[in-house]
Amino acid sequence: MISKETLEAFFRENFPNSDFTIESLGDKAATLRQPVSDNHLRPGGTVSGPVLMAMADAAIYTAILGSLGLVAMAVTTNLNINFMRKPQANRAVIAECRLLKLGRSLAVGEVFLYSEGDDEPVAHASGTYSIPPMEE
Amino acid sequence: MISKETLEAFFRENFPNSDFTIESLGDKAATLRQPVSDNHLRPGGTVSGPVLMAMADAAIYTAILGSLGLVAMAVTTNLNINFMRKPQANRAVIAECRLLKLGRSLAVGEVFLYSEGDDEPVAHASGTYSIPPMEE
Amino acid sequence: MISKETLEAFFRENFPNSDFTIESLGDKAATLRQPVSDNHLRPGGTVSGPVLMAMADAAIYTAILGSLGLVAMAVTTNLNINFMRKPQANRAVIAECRLLKLGRSLAVGEVFLYSEGDDEPVAHASGTYSIPPMEE
Amino acid sequence: MISKETLEAFFRENFPNSDFTIESLGDKAATLRQPVSDNHLRPGGTVSGPVLMAMADAAIYTAILGSLGLVAMAVTTNLNINFMRKPQANRAVIAECRLLKLGRSLAVGEVFLYSEGDDEPVAHASGTYSIPPMEE
Repeated sequence: MISKETLEAFFRENFPNSDFTIESLGDKAATLRQPVSDNHLRPGGTVSGPVLMAMADAAIYTAILGSLGLVAMAVTTNLNINFMRKPQANRAVIAECRLLKLGRSLAVGEVFLYSEGDDEPVAHASGTYSIPPMEE
Repeated sequence: MISKETLEAFFRENFPNSDFTIESLGDKAATLRQPVSDNHLRPGGTVSGPVLMAMADAAIYTAILGSLGLVAMAVTTNLNINFMRKPQANRAVIAECRLLKLGRSLAVGEVFLYSEGDDEPVAHASGTYSIPPMEE
Repeated sequence: MISKETLEAFFRENFPNSDFTIESLGDKAATLRQPVSDNHLRPGGTVSGPVLMAMADAAIYTAILGSLGLVAMAVTTNLNINFMRKPQANRAVIAECRLLKLGRSLAVGEVFLYSEGDDEPVAHASGTYSIPPMEE
Repeated sequence: MISKETLEAFFRENFPNSDFTIESLGDKAATLRQPVSDNHLRPGGTVSGPVLMAMADAAIYTAILGSLGLVAMAVTTNLNINFMRKPQANRAVIAECRLLKLGRSLAVGEVFLYSEGDDEPVAHASGTYSIPPMEE
Protein backbone atom coordinates (compact mmCIF):
# COMPACT_ATOMS: atom_id res chain seq x y z
CA MET A 1 0.00 0.00 0.00
CA ILE A 2 1.05 3.53 -0.75
CA SER A 3 2.21 5.76 2.13
CA LYS A 4 0.54 8.92 3.44
CA GLU A 5 3.67 10.90 2.60
CA THR A 6 3.70 9.77 -1.03
CA LEU A 7 0.03 10.64 -1.43
CA GLU A 8 0.45 14.04 0.24
CA ALA A 9 3.33 14.83 -2.11
CA PHE A 10 1.13 13.78 -5.04
CA PHE A 11 -1.59 16.20 -3.96
CA ARG A 12 0.86 19.06 -3.34
CA GLU A 13 2.28 18.65 -6.82
CA ASN A 14 -0.92 18.08 -8.73
CA PHE A 15 -3.33 20.23 -6.73
CA PRO A 16 -1.15 23.19 -5.64
CA ASN A 17 -4.10 24.82 -3.85
CA SER A 18 -4.85 21.87 -1.63
CA ASP A 19 -3.53 22.22 1.91
CA PHE A 20 -5.14 19.33 3.75
CA THR A 21 -3.17 16.62 5.48
CA ILE A 22 -3.86 12.90 5.40
CA GLU A 23 -4.47 11.87 9.00
CA SER A 24 -4.83 8.20 8.30
CA LEU A 25 -4.93 5.85 5.36
CA GLY A 26 -6.31 2.36 5.75
CA ASP A 27 -7.91 -0.49 3.91
CA LYS A 28 -10.48 1.27 1.70
CA ALA A 29 -10.49 4.21 4.10
CA ALA A 30 -8.91 7.62 4.53
CA THR A 31 -9.18 10.55 6.93
CA LEU A 32 -8.27 14.09 5.87
CA ARG A 33 -7.78 17.24 7.95
CA GLN A 34 -8.34 20.68 6.47
CA PRO A 35 -7.19 23.71 8.47
CA VAL A 36 -9.78 26.49 8.22
CA SER A 37 -8.71 30.03 7.42
CA ASP A 38 -10.62 33.19 6.57
CA ASN A 39 -11.04 32.37 2.91
CA HIS A 40 -12.90 29.18 3.78
CA LEU A 41 -15.62 31.05 5.60
CA ARG A 42 -18.96 32.39 4.45
CA PRO A 43 -21.33 34.98 5.90
CA GLY A 44 -22.52 33.92 9.33
CA GLY A 45 -19.05 32.80 10.41
CA THR A 46 -19.15 29.24 9.13
CA VAL A 47 -17.17 27.08 6.75
CA SER A 48 -18.55 27.39 3.22
CA GLY A 49 -20.29 24.45 1.54
CA PRO A 50 -17.79 24.18 -1.35
CA VAL A 51 -14.95 23.64 1.15
CA LEU A 52 -16.85 20.64 2.53
CA MET A 53 -17.67 19.35 -0.96
CA ALA A 54 -14.04 19.61 -2.03
CA MET A 55 -12.95 17.70 1.07
CA ALA A 56 -15.52 14.96 0.50
CA ASP A 57 -14.31 14.55 -3.06
CA ALA A 58 -10.64 14.54 -2.01
CA ALA A 59 -11.28 12.03 0.77
CA ILE A 60 -12.85 9.50 -1.61
CA TYR A 61 -10.07 10.09 -4.15
CA THR A 62 -7.47 9.57 -1.41
CA ALA A 63 -9.04 6.32 -0.25
CA ILE A 64 -9.10 5.03 -3.86
CA LEU A 65 -5.50 6.02 -4.63
CA GLY A 66 -4.42 4.62 -1.28
CA SER A 67 -5.88 1.27 -2.27
CA LEU A 68 -5.07 1.16 -6.00
CA GLY A 69 -1.90 3.27 -6.21
CA LEU A 70 -1.13 6.47 -8.08
CA VAL A 71 -1.51 4.90 -11.49
CA ALA A 72 -5.26 5.07 -11.27
CA MET A 73 -6.64 8.15 -12.98
CA ALA A 74 -10.02 7.83 -11.37
CA VAL A 75 -12.61 10.55 -12.03
CA THR A 76 -15.65 11.54 -10.00
CA THR A 77 -18.91 10.73 -11.75
CA ASN A 78 -21.41 11.64 -9.01
CA LEU A 79 -21.24 13.42 -5.69
CA ASN A 80 -24.14 13.93 -3.31
CA ILE A 81 -23.87 15.85 -0.04
CA ASN A 82 -26.25 16.64 2.80
CA PHE A 83 -25.38 19.63 4.99
CA MET A 84 -26.64 18.98 8.50
CA ARG A 85 -25.06 21.34 11.03
CA LYS A 86 -23.17 24.62 10.97
CA PRO A 87 -19.42 23.94 11.07
CA GLN A 88 -17.39 25.88 13.61
CA ALA A 89 -15.48 28.77 12.10
CA ASN A 90 -12.38 28.32 14.25
CA ARG A 91 -11.90 24.57 13.90
CA ALA A 92 -10.30 22.37 11.30
CA VAL A 93 -12.61 20.13 9.28
CA ILE A 94 -12.11 16.36 9.44
CA ALA A 95 -13.32 14.13 6.58
CA GLU A 96 -13.61 10.41 7.24
CA CYS A 97 -14.07 8.32 4.11
CA ARG A 98 -14.92 4.66 3.81
CA LEU A 99 -15.20 2.94 0.43
CA LEU A 100 -18.41 0.92 0.18
CA LYS A 101 -17.35 -0.64 -3.09
CA LEU A 102 -14.06 -0.84 -4.92
CA GLY A 103 -14.79 -2.65 -8.15
CA ARG A 104 -12.79 -2.85 -11.34
CA SER A 105 -14.53 0.07 -12.98
CA LEU A 106 -16.58 1.73 -10.24
CA ALA A 107 -15.83 2.85 -6.69
CA VAL A 108 -18.39 4.17 -4.22
CA GLY A 109 -17.48 5.93 -1.01
CA GLU A 110 -19.18 7.70 1.84
CA VAL A 111 -17.72 10.56 3.86
CA PHE A 112 -18.60 11.99 7.25
CA LEU A 113 -17.42 15.56 7.83
CA TYR A 114 -16.85 16.99 11.31
CA SER A 115 -15.62 20.14 12.98
CA GLU A 116 -12.53 18.80 14.75
CA GLY A 117 -13.40 17.64 18.24
CA ASP A 118 -17.16 17.42 17.69
CA ASP A 119 -19.09 14.15 17.67
CA GLU A 120 -21.95 15.21 15.44
CA PRO A 121 -21.16 15.38 11.71
CA VAL A 122 -21.63 18.70 9.94
CA ALA A 123 -22.22 16.98 6.62
CA HIS A 124 -22.42 13.56 4.99
CA ALA A 125 -21.52 12.81 1.38
CA SER A 126 -21.47 9.89 -0.97
CA GLY A 127 -19.71 9.75 -4.28
CA THR A 128 -18.97 7.48 -7.20
CA TYR A 129 -15.72 7.32 -9.13
CA SER A 130 -15.12 5.78 -12.52
CA ILE A 131 -11.89 3.82 -12.65
CA PRO A 132 -10.37 3.53 -16.11
CA PRO A 133 -8.99 0.17 -17.26
CA MET A 134 -5.42 -0.43 -16.08
CA GLU A 135 -2.84 -0.64 -18.82
CA GLU A 136 -1.02 -3.94 -18.81
CA MET B 1 -35.59 42.81 -8.32
CA ILE B 2 -32.00 43.18 -7.25
CA SER B 3 -29.38 44.16 -9.87
CA LYS B 4 -26.42 42.07 -11.06
CA GLU B 5 -24.05 44.77 -9.84
CA THR B 6 -25.46 44.71 -6.30
CA LEU B 7 -25.23 40.93 -6.17
CA GLU B 8 -21.68 40.88 -7.53
CA ALA B 9 -20.64 43.42 -4.90
CA PHE B 10 -22.26 41.23 -2.24
CA PHE B 11 -20.24 38.21 -3.37
CA ARG B 12 -16.98 40.21 -3.57
CA GLU B 13 -17.47 41.41 -0.02
CA ASN B 14 -18.69 38.20 1.56
CA PHE B 15 -16.79 35.62 -0.48
CA PRO B 16 -13.46 37.36 -1.18
CA ASN B 17 -12.17 34.32 -3.07
CA SER B 18 -14.99 34.23 -5.58
CA ASP B 19 -14.13 35.71 -8.95
CA PHE B 20 -17.08 34.74 -11.11
CA THR B 21 -19.27 37.26 -12.86
CA ILE B 22 -23.05 37.19 -13.10
CA GLU B 23 -23.85 37.02 -16.80
CA SER B 24 -27.58 37.23 -16.40
CA LEU B 25 -30.16 37.34 -13.66
CA GLY B 26 -33.77 36.57 -14.43
CA ASP B 27 -36.99 35.37 -12.95
CA LYS B 28 -35.87 32.39 -10.83
CA ALA B 29 -32.77 32.05 -12.99
CA ALA B 30 -29.12 33.07 -13.05
CA THR B 31 -26.09 32.48 -15.23
CA LEU B 32 -22.55 32.70 -13.85
CA ARG B 33 -19.20 32.80 -15.66
CA GLN B 34 -16.04 31.55 -13.99
CA PRO B 35 -12.69 32.31 -15.66
CA VAL B 36 -10.41 29.29 -15.42
CA SER B 37 -6.82 29.68 -14.29
CA ASP B 38 -4.09 27.22 -13.38
CA ASN B 39 -5.27 26.70 -9.84
CA HIS B 40 -8.65 25.45 -11.09
CA LEU B 41 -7.07 22.60 -13.00
CA ARG B 42 -6.42 19.01 -12.04
CA PRO B 43 -4.15 16.35 -13.51
CA GLY B 44 -5.09 15.60 -17.09
CA GLY B 45 -5.53 19.28 -17.92
CA THR B 46 -9.14 19.69 -16.94
CA VAL B 47 -11.15 21.82 -14.54
CA SER B 48 -11.38 20.16 -11.13
CA GLY B 49 -14.68 18.82 -9.81
CA PRO B 50 -14.80 21.12 -6.76
CA VAL B 51 -14.67 24.18 -9.03
CA LEU B 52 -17.80 22.92 -10.78
CA MET B 53 -19.48 22.07 -7.47
CA ALA B 54 -18.73 25.54 -6.09
CA MET B 55 -20.18 27.15 -9.21
CA ALA B 56 -23.33 25.04 -9.06
CA ASP B 57 -23.84 26.05 -5.44
CA ALA B 58 -23.17 29.73 -6.18
CA ALA B 59 -25.51 29.72 -9.18
CA ILE B 60 -28.45 28.43 -7.13
CA TYR B 61 -27.63 30.89 -4.33
CA THR B 62 -27.49 33.74 -6.87
CA ALA B 63 -30.85 32.80 -8.38
CA ILE B 64 -32.43 32.71 -4.91
CA LEU B 65 -30.94 36.02 -3.77
CA GLY B 66 -31.86 37.57 -7.12
CA SER B 67 -35.47 36.62 -6.48
CA LEU B 68 -35.76 37.17 -2.72
CA GLY B 69 -33.20 39.94 -2.09
CA LEU B 70 -30.10 40.03 0.07
CA VAL B 71 -31.99 39.66 3.33
CA ALA B 72 -32.41 35.96 2.79
CA MET B 73 -29.72 33.94 4.61
CA ALA B 74 -30.45 30.79 2.68
CA VAL B 75 -28.26 27.76 3.32
CA THR B 76 -27.61 24.74 1.12
CA THR B 77 -29.09 21.54 2.52
CA ASN B 78 -28.35 19.13 -0.34
CA LEU B 79 -26.31 19.22 -3.51
CA ASN B 80 -26.07 16.46 -6.08
CA ILE B 81 -23.87 16.64 -9.16
CA ASN B 82 -23.22 14.37 -12.14
CA PHE B 83 -19.98 14.87 -14.02
CA MET B 84 -20.50 13.99 -17.66
CA ARG B 85 -17.72 15.33 -19.87
CA LYS B 86 -14.20 16.63 -19.43
CA PRO B 87 -14.24 20.45 -19.26
CA GLN B 88 -11.78 22.29 -21.48
CA ALA B 89 -8.76 23.57 -19.60
CA ASN B 90 -8.53 26.84 -21.52
CA ARG B 91 -12.16 27.92 -21.40
CA ALA B 92 -14.29 29.69 -18.83
CA VAL B 93 -17.04 27.65 -17.18
CA ILE B 94 -20.65 28.79 -17.56
CA ALA B 95 -23.27 27.78 -14.98
CA GLU B 96 -26.93 28.17 -15.93
CA CYS B 97 -29.33 27.83 -13.01
CA ARG B 98 -33.08 27.58 -13.05
CA LEU B 99 -35.11 27.37 -9.84
CA LEU B 100 -37.63 24.52 -10.00
CA LYS B 101 -39.26 25.59 -6.76
CA LEU B 102 -39.08 28.74 -4.70
CA GLY B 103 -41.27 28.10 -1.67
CA ARG B 104 -41.42 29.86 1.65
CA SER B 105 -38.94 27.57 3.35
CA LEU B 106 -37.41 25.46 0.56
CA ALA B 107 -35.89 26.26 -2.81
CA VAL B 108 -34.81 23.68 -5.39
CA GLY B 109 -32.67 24.51 -8.39
CA GLU B 110 -30.94 22.75 -11.22
CA VAL B 111 -27.74 23.85 -12.90
CA PHE B 112 -26.18 22.98 -16.24
CA LEU B 113 -22.44 23.60 -16.47
CA TYR B 114 -20.64 24.17 -19.77
CA SER B 115 -17.21 24.95 -21.10
CA GLU B 116 -17.87 28.34 -22.70
CA GLY B 117 -18.85 27.96 -26.33
CA ASP B 118 -19.73 24.24 -26.12
CA ASP B 119 -23.27 22.90 -26.49
CA GLU B 120 -22.87 19.74 -24.44
CA PRO B 121 -22.90 20.21 -20.65
CA VAL B 122 -19.84 19.06 -18.69
CA ALA B 123 -21.93 18.53 -15.55
CA HIS B 124 -25.46 18.79 -14.20
CA ALA B 125 -26.34 19.55 -10.60
CA SER B 126 -29.42 19.93 -8.47
CA GLY B 127 -29.55 21.45 -5.05
CA THR B 128 -31.91 22.36 -2.24
CA TYR B 129 -31.70 25.43 -0.06
CA SER B 130 -33.41 26.05 3.24
CA ILE B 131 -34.82 29.56 3.50
CA PRO B 132 -35.17 30.87 7.05
CA PRO B 133 -38.35 32.70 8.05
CA MET B 134 -38.27 36.40 7.16
CA GLU B 135 -38.32 38.79 10.07
CA GLU B 136 -41.25 41.14 9.90
CA MET C 1 -35.22 3.24 -33.63
CA ILE C 2 -37.37 0.89 -31.62
CA SER C 3 -41.14 1.48 -31.49
CA LYS C 4 -43.23 2.40 -28.44
CA GLU C 5 -45.25 -0.77 -28.91
CA THR C 6 -42.18 -3.00 -28.84
CA LEU C 7 -40.89 -1.31 -25.72
CA GLU C 8 -44.26 -1.50 -23.97
CA ALA C 9 -44.43 -5.23 -24.74
CA PHE C 10 -40.92 -5.62 -23.33
CA PHE C 11 -41.95 -3.96 -20.05
CA ARG C 12 -45.20 -5.98 -19.81
CA GLU C 13 -43.24 -9.20 -20.19
CA ASN C 14 -40.26 -8.38 -18.01
CA PHE C 15 -41.88 -6.19 -15.36
CA PRO C 16 -45.36 -7.73 -14.97
CA ASN C 17 -46.27 -5.18 -12.31
CA SER C 18 -45.62 -2.15 -14.44
CA ASP C 19 -48.71 -0.55 -15.90
CA PHE C 20 -47.44 2.71 -17.33
CA THR C 21 -47.75 3.61 -20.99
CA ILE C 22 -45.09 5.21 -23.16
CA GLU C 23 -46.57 8.50 -24.36
CA SER C 24 -43.68 9.43 -26.57
CA LEU C 25 -40.25 8.17 -27.49
CA GLY C 26 -37.77 10.47 -29.15
CA ASP C 27 -34.11 11.09 -29.69
CA LYS C 28 -32.64 10.50 -26.21
CA ALA C 29 -36.03 11.24 -24.68
CA ALA C 30 -39.11 9.46 -23.39
CA THR C 31 -42.38 10.36 -21.70
CA LEU C 32 -44.26 7.88 -19.53
CA ARG C 33 -47.78 8.03 -18.11
CA GLN C 34 -48.70 6.19 -14.93
CA PRO C 35 -52.38 5.90 -13.98
CA VAL C 36 -52.82 6.41 -10.26
CA SER C 37 -54.94 4.01 -8.24
CA ASP C 38 -55.53 3.52 -4.53
CA ASN C 39 -52.43 1.44 -3.96
CA HIS C 40 -50.23 4.28 -5.21
CA LEU C 41 -51.43 6.64 -2.51
CA ARG C 42 -50.06 7.46 0.90
CA PRO C 43 -51.61 9.10 3.94
CA GLY C 44 -52.70 12.64 3.16
CA GLY C 45 -54.19 11.61 -0.19
CA THR C 46 -51.12 11.96 -2.34
CA VAL C 47 -49.04 9.73 -4.60
CA SER C 48 -46.31 7.98 -2.63
CA GLY C 49 -42.65 8.80 -3.18
CA PRO C 50 -41.66 5.30 -4.32
CA VAL C 51 -44.18 5.49 -7.19
CA LEU C 52 -42.42 8.65 -8.41
CA MET C 53 -38.97 7.09 -7.94
CA ALA C 54 -39.99 3.99 -9.89
CA MET C 55 -41.31 6.16 -12.72
CA ALA C 56 -38.13 8.25 -12.84
CA ASP C 57 -36.06 5.09 -13.07
CA ALA C 58 -38.33 3.57 -15.75
CA ALA C 59 -38.32 6.78 -17.79
CA ILE C 60 -34.52 6.89 -17.99
CA TYR C 61 -34.41 3.16 -18.78
CA THR C 62 -37.00 3.67 -21.53
CA ALA C 63 -35.07 6.56 -23.08
CA ILE C 64 -31.88 4.46 -23.09
CA LEU C 65 -33.53 1.34 -24.58
CA GLY C 66 -35.35 3.54 -27.11
CA SER C 67 -31.97 4.84 -28.27
CA LEU C 68 -29.81 1.73 -27.99
CA GLY C 69 -32.33 -1.08 -28.55
CA LEU C 70 -33.41 -3.97 -26.35
CA VAL C 71 -30.02 -5.64 -26.37
CA ALA C 72 -28.68 -3.20 -23.81
CA MET C 73 -28.87 -4.60 -20.29
CA ALA C 74 -28.29 -1.24 -18.67
CA VAL C 75 -28.42 -1.03 -14.87
CA THR C 76 -29.05 1.97 -12.65
CA THR C 77 -26.00 3.01 -10.66
CA ASN C 78 -27.30 6.22 -9.03
CA LEU C 79 -30.66 7.90 -8.67
CA ASN C 80 -31.30 11.22 -6.97
CA ILE C 81 -34.76 12.74 -6.57
CA ASN C 82 -36.10 15.98 -5.13
CA PHE C 83 -39.76 16.02 -4.11
CA MET C 84 -41.14 19.51 -4.58
CA ARG C 85 -44.93 19.57 -4.56
CA LYS C 86 -47.74 17.28 -3.46
CA PRO C 87 -48.99 15.25 -6.42
CA GLN C 88 -52.75 15.17 -6.99
CA ALA C 89 -54.35 11.94 -5.81
CA ASN C 90 -56.82 11.71 -8.70
CA ARG C 91 -54.48 12.40 -11.58
CA ALA C 92 -52.07 10.28 -13.59
CA VAL C 93 -48.37 11.02 -13.18
CA ILE C 94 -46.36 12.06 -16.25
CA ALA C 95 -42.58 11.50 -16.34
CA GLU C 96 -40.59 13.38 -18.97
CA CYS C 97 -37.04 12.13 -19.39
CA ARG C 98 -34.21 13.65 -21.37
CA LEU C 99 -30.80 11.97 -21.59
CA LEU C 100 -28.02 14.45 -20.86
CA LYS C 101 -25.34 11.98 -21.88
CA LEU C 102 -25.43 8.70 -23.74
CA GLY C 103 -21.87 7.46 -23.78
CA ARG C 104 -20.49 4.02 -24.48
CA SER C 105 -20.48 2.93 -20.85
CA LEU C 106 -22.44 5.63 -18.97
CA ALA C 107 -25.79 7.31 -19.53
CA VAL C 108 -27.12 10.23 -17.49
CA GLY C 109 -30.72 11.39 -17.62
CA GLU C 110 -32.98 13.87 -15.92
CA VAL C 111 -36.69 13.47 -15.33
CA PHE C 112 -39.43 15.96 -14.55
CA LEU C 113 -42.53 14.45 -12.95
CA TYR C 114 -45.95 16.11 -13.13
CA SER C 115 -49.52 15.51 -12.10
CA GLU C 116 -51.19 15.29 -15.50
CA GLY C 117 -52.41 18.71 -16.61
CA ASP C 118 -50.29 20.70 -14.18
CA ASP C 119 -47.42 22.99 -15.22
CA GLU C 120 -45.38 22.81 -12.03
CA PRO C 121 -43.37 19.61 -11.53
CA VAL C 122 -44.06 17.53 -8.42
CA ALA C 123 -40.54 16.10 -8.47
CA HIS C 124 -37.26 16.19 -10.37
CA ALA C 125 -34.82 13.30 -10.62
CA SER C 126 -31.48 12.57 -12.19
CA GLY C 127 -29.98 9.16 -12.65
CA THR C 128 -26.97 7.37 -14.05
CA TYR C 129 -26.99 4.04 -15.83
CA SER C 130 -24.06 1.76 -16.51
CA ILE C 131 -24.15 0.32 -20.02
CA PRO C 132 -22.35 -2.99 -20.39
CA PRO C 133 -20.11 -3.53 -23.42
CA MET C 134 -22.02 -4.70 -26.49
CA GLU C 135 -21.21 -8.20 -27.69
CA GLU C 136 -19.93 -8.21 -31.22
CA MET D 1 -40.93 5.19 22.37
CA ILE D 2 -43.42 3.65 20.02
CA SER D 3 -43.44 -0.16 19.60
CA LYS D 4 -42.62 -2.15 16.47
CA GLU D 5 -46.11 -3.64 16.52
CA THR D 6 -47.80 -0.23 16.56
CA LEU D 7 -45.67 0.97 13.69
CA GLU D 8 -46.25 -2.18 11.64
CA ALA D 9 -50.01 -1.79 12.14
CA PHE D 10 -49.69 1.84 11.00
CA PHE D 11 -47.96 0.77 7.79
CA ARG D 12 -50.46 -2.04 7.10
CA GLU D 13 -53.34 0.38 7.42
CA ASN D 14 -51.86 3.33 5.58
CA PHE D 15 -49.74 1.56 2.98
CA PRO D 16 -51.77 -1.58 2.18
CA ASN D 17 -49.19 -2.73 -0.38
CA SER D 18 -46.28 -2.72 2.02
CA ASP D 19 -45.35 -6.15 3.32
CA PHE D 20 -42.05 -5.56 5.11
CA THR D 21 -41.53 -6.27 8.76
CA ILE D 22 -39.71 -4.09 11.28
CA GLU D 23 -36.82 -6.19 12.55
CA SER D 24 -35.61 -3.66 15.08
CA LEU D 25 -36.38 -0.14 16.18
CA GLY D 26 -33.86 1.80 18.20
CA ASP D 27 -32.69 5.26 19.09
CA LYS D 28 -32.74 7.04 15.71
CA ALA D 29 -32.42 3.69 13.97
CA ALA D 30 -34.58 1.06 12.30
CA THR D 31 -34.07 -2.19 10.42
CA LEU D 32 -36.64 -3.46 7.92
CA ARG D 33 -36.95 -6.85 6.21
CA GLN D 34 -38.64 -7.21 2.86
CA PRO D 35 -39.45 -10.72 1.60
CA VAL D 36 -38.71 -10.96 -2.12
CA SER D 37 -41.24 -12.51 -4.48
CA ASP D 38 -41.49 -12.75 -8.25
CA ASN D 39 -42.97 -9.31 -8.72
CA HIS D 40 -39.95 -7.71 -7.06
CA LEU D 41 -37.59 -9.10 -9.69
CA ARG D 42 -36.29 -7.64 -12.91
CA PRO D 43 -34.67 -9.24 -15.97
CA GLY D 44 -31.44 -10.95 -15.01
CA GLY D 45 -32.95 -12.48 -11.88
CA THR D 46 -32.31 -9.66 -9.45
CA VAL D 47 -34.35 -7.42 -7.18
CA SER D 48 -35.47 -4.31 -9.04
CA GLY D 49 -34.10 -0.89 -8.15
CA PRO D 50 -37.47 0.61 -7.17
CA VAL D 51 -37.93 -2.11 -4.52
CA LEU D 52 -34.65 -1.00 -2.93
CA MET D 53 -35.58 2.68 -3.21
CA ALA D 54 -38.96 2.06 -1.59
CA MET D 55 -37.28 0.20 1.26
CA ALA D 56 -34.73 2.95 1.80
CA ASP D 57 -37.50 5.52 1.98
CA ALA D 58 -39.59 3.36 4.34
CA ALA D 59 -36.61 2.67 6.61
CA ILE D 60 -35.90 6.39 7.13
CA TYR D 61 -39.61 7.06 7.67
CA THR D 62 -39.77 4.23 10.20
CA ALA D 63 -36.75 5.54 12.12
CA ILE D 64 -38.31 9.02 12.26
CA LEU D 65 -41.74 7.82 13.37
CA GLY D 66 -40.10 5.49 15.89
CA SER D 67 -38.38 8.49 17.44
CA LEU D 68 -41.07 11.17 17.10
CA GLY D 69 -44.28 9.12 17.24
CA LEU D 70 -47.09 8.73 14.72
CA VAL D 71 -48.20 12.33 14.95
CA ALA D 72 -45.38 13.43 12.70
CA MET D 73 -46.48 13.73 9.08
CA ALA D 74 -42.95 13.85 7.75
CA VAL D 75 -42.45 13.95 3.98
CA THR D 76 -39.41 12.96 1.94
CA THR D 77 -37.72 15.93 0.29
CA ASN D 78 -34.65 14.22 -1.22
CA LEU D 79 -33.51 10.67 -1.73
CA ASN D 80 -30.20 9.59 -3.24
CA ILE D 81 -29.23 5.98 -3.82
CA ASN D 82 -26.15 4.21 -5.13
CA PHE D 83 -26.62 0.69 -6.46
CA MET D 84 -23.45 -1.29 -5.86
CA ARG D 85 -24.01 -5.02 -6.20
CA LYS D 86 -26.62 -7.32 -7.70
CA PRO D 87 -29.06 -8.43 -5.00
CA GLN D 88 -29.79 -12.13 -4.76
CA ALA D 89 -33.13 -13.08 -6.29
CA ASN D 90 -34.00 -15.68 -3.65
CA ARG D 91 -33.19 -13.71 -0.51
CA ALA D 92 -35.05 -11.13 1.51
CA VAL D 93 -33.70 -7.59 1.48
CA ILE D 94 -32.61 -6.00 4.76
CA ALA D 95 -32.54 -2.21 5.15
CA GLU D 96 -30.60 -0.75 8.06
CA CYS D 97 -31.28 2.93 8.70
CA ARG D 98 -29.50 5.31 11.00
CA LEU D 99 -30.61 8.93 11.40
CA LEU D 100 -27.66 11.31 11.08
CA LYS D 101 -29.75 14.27 12.14
CA LEU D 102 -33.14 14.60 13.76
CA GLY D 103 -33.80 18.31 14.01
CA ARG D 104 -37.01 20.20 14.57
CA SER D 105 -37.76 20.65 10.88
CA LEU D 106 -35.28 18.40 9.05
CA ALA D 107 -34.22 14.78 9.43
CA VAL D 108 -31.39 13.13 7.51
CA GLY D 109 -30.85 9.39 7.41
CA GLU D 110 -28.62 6.87 5.72
CA VAL D 111 -29.57 3.33 4.78
CA PHE D 112 -27.51 0.27 3.95
CA LEU D 113 -29.35 -2.40 1.98
CA TYR D 114 -28.30 -6.05 1.99
CA SER D 115 -29.37 -9.40 0.61
CA GLU D 116 -30.14 -11.24 3.84
CA GLY D 117 -27.08 -13.08 5.09
CA ASP D 118 -24.56 -11.17 2.98
CA ASP D 119 -21.95 -8.81 4.41
CA GLU D 120 -21.52 -6.55 1.43
CA PRO D 121 -24.30 -4.00 0.87
CA VAL D 122 -26.19 -4.11 -2.42
CA ALA D 123 -27.04 -0.42 -2.18
CA HIS D 124 -26.58 2.66 -0.01
CA ALA D 125 -29.03 5.53 0.25
CA SER D 126 -29.35 8.83 2.02
CA GLY D 127 -32.49 10.86 2.37
CA THR D 128 -33.89 14.01 3.89
CA TYR D 129 -37.30 14.43 5.41
CA SER D 130 -39.13 17.64 6.17
CA ILE D 131 -40.87 17.54 9.54
CA PRO D 132 -43.87 19.84 9.83
CA PRO D 133 -44.31 21.92 12.99
CA MET D 134 -46.04 20.00 15.77
CA GLU D 135 -49.45 21.31 16.76
CA GLU D 136 -49.61 22.21 20.39
